[in-house]
Amino acid sequence: MPGPYVSFLSDFGDDTAPAVCRGVIWSIAPDARINDLTHTSRQFGIRDGAFLLWSAVPYLPVGVHLAVVDPGVGTERRPIAIRAARGDHLVGPDNGLLLPAAEHLGGVVAAHVLENRSLWRDAVSYTFHGRDLFAPVAAHLAKGVAISEVGPAVAVGSMVPLSFPEPAVRGGGLDTSVIFVDAFGNCRLAGQPDDLARVTGELHPGHRFIAHIGSSSVEAPWQITFGAVEPGAVLLYEDADYAGLAIGVNQGSAAEKLGLERDMPIRIEPA
Amino acid sequence: MPGPYVSFLSDFGDDTAPAVCRGVIWSIAPDARINDLTHTSRQFGIRDGAFLLWSAVPYLPVGVHLAVVDPGVGTERRPIAIRAARGDHLVGPDNGLLLPAAEHLGGVVAAHVLENRSLWRDAVSYTFHGRDLFAPVAAHLAKGVAISEVGPAVAVGSMVPLSFPEPAVRGGGLDTSVIFVDAFGNCRLAGQPDDLARVTGELHPGHRFIAHIGSSSVEAPWQITFGAVEPGAVLLYEDADYAGLAIGVNQGSAAEKLGLERDMPIRIEPA
Amino acid sequence: MPGPYVSFLSDFGDDTAPAVCRGVIWSIAPDARINDLTHTSRQFGIRDGAFLLWSAVPYLPVGVHLAVVDPGVGTERRPIAIRAARGDHLVGPDNGLLLPAAEHLGGVVAAHVLENRSLWRDAVSYTFHGRDLFAPVAAHLAKGVAISEVGPAVAVGSMVPLSFPEPAVRGGGLDTSVIFVDAFGNCRLAGQPDDLARVTGELHPGHRFIAHIGSSSVEAPWQITFGAVEPGAVLLYEDADYAGLAIGVNQGSAAEKLGLERDMPIRIEPA
Repeated sequence: MPGPYVSFLSDFGDDTAPAVCRGVIWSIAPDARINDLTHTSRQFGIRDGAFLLWSAVPYLPVGVHLAVVDPGVGTERRPIAIRAARGDHLVGPDNGLLLPAAEHLGGVVAAHVLENRSLWRDAVSYTFHGRDLFAPVAAHLAKGVAISEVGPAVAVGSMVPLSFPEPAVRGGGLDTSVIFVDAFGNCRLAGQPDDLARVTGELHPGHRFIAHIGSSSVEAPWQITFGAVEPGAVLLYEDADYAGLAIGVNQGSAAEKLGLERDMPIRIEPA
Repeated sequence: MPGPYVSFLSDFGDDTAPAVCRGVIWSIAPDARINDLTHTSRQFGIRDGAFLLWSAVPYLPVGVHLAVVDPGVGTERRPIAIRAARGDHLVGPDNGLLLPAAEHLGGVVAAHVLENRSLWRDAVSYTFHGRDLFAPVAAHLAKGVAISEVGPAVAVGSMVPLSFPEPAVRGGGLDTSVIFVDAFGNCRLAGQPDDLARVTGELHPGHRFIAHIGSSSVEAPWQITFGAVEPGAVLLYEDADYAGLAIGVNQGSAAEKLGLERDMPIRIEPA
Repeated sequence: MPGPYVSFLSDFGDDTAPAVCRGVIWSIAPDARINDLTHTSRQFGIRDGAFLLWSAVPYLPVGVHLAVVDPGVGTERRPIAIRAARGDHLVGPDNGLLLPAAEHLGGVVAAHVLENRSLWRDAVSYTFHGRDLFAPVAAHLAKGVAISEVGPAVAVGSMVPLSFPEPAVRGGGLDTSVIFVDAFGNCRLAGQPDDLARVTGELHPGHRFIAHIGSSSVEAPWQITFGAVEPGAVLLYEDADYAGLAIGVNQGSAAEKLGLERDMPIRIEPA
């Protein structure tokens, strides 16, 4: 009988802080299977963390998903736990970080504010709620404590919302922007392949587009797979890792080749 | 019944060396729960590794703490195992790395030099004692082998000591220095909030100080939480992650903003 | 009874992709013990990944070794599973990545192409076979599925081969090259200490050599251990981490001091 599953995402960086939180989790739920999603999510970047959590959760076992990107730690922002329709729990700050993932898991079934201090560490610091509050509550939920035990229910509509940038079809092209650059330099763009299809009709491999980035532009085909273009060549494709429209370079970095960074606007037109 | 707990800290960096050591541990103690504290501790930095281990251990389960920052590998420095009062074992080189953590766990109860080669890998290299000697001994201790089995007892006072820089109250100010810069750029300073209180009496939120760094200076209030100052503003606070006096920037990097690096002196005076 | 052992090496980088694959593995084999070898293997560098896997496997428990460095993802390159003589399985692309490790584990006993889609994720993307195909097959093998179930056998000789650079004795010296730079800046060279001994006869500590790198050269003794030379001094030694001839600097970086990079030629002559 394997132990309960706990995901863990943060912006703590390459420090001992994630290990300290794992120590706290194992002190409460010694057989937990802990899966570190990443700890180098953009520092203080709530939307970045929310995006990574949203894209990962469909592939993770049902369990507890602990996420801490928390620029408001120690202020009046609420600590919360959410139960999603698939049966998962999400634990973290009420700043929008958890909601897209909860939607991806079927939607919010219940939400509770963390107020039951008997589930926290005895001493709670003002600057490390990941260790003192979120990790222990996540561990207790993993062990089977009911979400109603963590504190009073809160109205779903009272939680801080979060939205991702949306693309727009305008003047025969798609206005979108970079929402995430992965470790290969592939750039996930706002929107889905269907948004691009609204410009030209059904996409087919080899369909040619021009991507306008600032004052420069590059021709790029729609392709299904990187290997369909030469090494070093640009392509538009459906990104499997991050579930959406993307621009990449076969065996290279689109971010480097095209000078792309997060939040940069990009316009795609038929060639 | 969960497996035994093993922490693992090193300066091996982002290589396969930590995984190879985990493989060795799992070959001996297949159900060990291994918690990688960090493997990017400053290379050859005994004091840095000792500081990180010291700050983490109170939050970790009772178990074995393996630590390898070992510039003297292959020389006459002794490999040791220590039993601490809380019930933990620490395994690593006798170069000061383990002692502050052992003190934090209640003090040294016993110390033994690793000489029982039947607990080592069959072939021991001259340059990778982490894999060939420390990891297997840690795994055997995790499985329940008595510390007296690893080799002869050594006198506590014979172990290589290690101390951290200490602050000094002088001329109405506190002379301290940076002992650790975390992934956010927060700077942990030598000493505790009580040391600063020796300058001005009891600290209260909003109490204003001037921090002198080289030829420049910056005003910074004492605060309990980052959110008490504006984003981008400097504060003095009690660091929860690394248990001591610290200087930081709300949603920013104090190291970057103030040009601070490890070992840099900093003087704090009342404003 | 500990769960099955799964190694995992990739070039996915510091992203959520490795965690997503671990989630898929744990969805199928919930008690798997997963050991991340590294996920920052050189991007698209098949030889680099093959070298790291080759050097690590002798120290890892018998189990499944999942490796994904896959510049040909989505093209006609075959996905394969190999059974090695020691009893391990290796899973990944048929591009040479797995073969040196299989040889290190006693040689290839059987090889099968992954064609049984019932062992894959239901939906298979074109760009993330690590998640959709390799990780699930690795998890099924870890659970005890027979390799013959993953798809038809392939002839060993039909797999894409891979070889590492070889040194050559010429004109009283050894012509070799850098094949890997570790996190300390130690440079693993093509060949073994025995290759160097072919130049001068049996190596003994203190034996002096001159290493020619481009137009510069440096004198370096053969030593057994870093501590045998002064801090900052260069030495030739047998690298225990990466099993072969190496050039390093005591408590420093040979790569930095000598300007060495992967693939750079280096000639070693008696001093």
